[in-house]
Amino acid sequence: MSADPQRAVSEYLHGRRFQTDKVGEINFGPSGLVPAVIQDVSDGTVLMVAYMDEEALLRTLSTGRTWFYSRSRNEYWCKGETSGNRQHVVEAYYDCDADTLLFKVVQEGSGACHTGERSCFYRAFEPVAGPDDRKDADDSDRPESLEPSAVGSAGEA
Amino acid sequence: MSADPQRAVSEYLHGRRFQTDKVGEINFGPSGLVPAVIQDVSDGTVLMVAYMDEEALLRTLSTGRTWFYSRSRNEYWCKGETSGNRQHVVEAYYDCDADTLLFKVVQEGSGACHTGERSCFYRAFEPVAGPDDRKDADDSDRPESLEPSAVGSAGEA
Repeated sequence: MSADPQRAVSEYLHGRRFQTDKVGEINFGPSGLVPAVIQDVSDGTVLMVAYMDEEALLRTLSTGRTWFYSRSRNEYWCKGETSGNRQHVVEAYYDCDADTLLFKVVQEGSGACHTGERSCFYRAFEPVAGPDDRKDADDSDRPESLEPSAVGSAGEA
Repeated sequence: MSADPQRAVSEYLHGRRFQTDKVGEINFGPSGLVPAVIQDVSDGTVLMVAYMDEEALLRTLSTGRTWFYSRSRNEYWCKGETSGNRQHVVEAYYDCDADTLLFKVVQEGSGACHTGERSCFYRAFEPVAGPDDRKDADDSDRPESLEPSAVGSAGEA
């Protein structure tokens, strides 16, 4: 990964911008959109996932603020323009298939989620009872598709 | 967010499983697939993003290993079955719109990426020269769409 994060955080205050020469490498696919994971640079919390097309990515890199494209509203939106919960990009990445983006940001305000939560991922699938409680557990409620013959060697994990 | 991460990591060694009662809340949309962000529980690194349908999510929650659906291969795959780079789920979340998943995992082996990198997000959009270098920079190469009139108040960031 890239440069000194402390310097990066300092730089964003002056308006960090990113080179756009690699935008052509991104595979936006038939929909023209790729998911963008937004991560808080301060502690690694995944704040949200939203979608960018080429124009939204160009705006994000060129302004240092996160821009997304909303299919339902058919418009571009700059995160935090209404709520004040702005995101300032400190680091920007794309994945091995060039079809997913990752931005590490300084999150202003109360958080990223429109519900008021800091992260959009505030709801969990709860674990089944711990190992000690489960030793005698009945496995009969496992989905049929999870019979050993269907899961291959997953059982060895 | 949820319970004690240390206990959670310990539990995974015994095979952590998750309740499936909230799977019906997930909005898989027209494609039947939602993106799943996979994050290393040890330090928050975003390792990869791949896609799950309902069956892949059920397998993931019920086995404690990450399962994905590949459209190109038209098959389910359990991460690490071939490479040994298995992912053991410690925490599982879904977002406010119930159309994106987040899994914190213990990553076995060298990493998540088929290229040998630990994270699939190993390529960066490089920052433009730092603030001190940029004071006299020429902005004439900014995309036309980023003229101030087009970006609204983004310039105030």
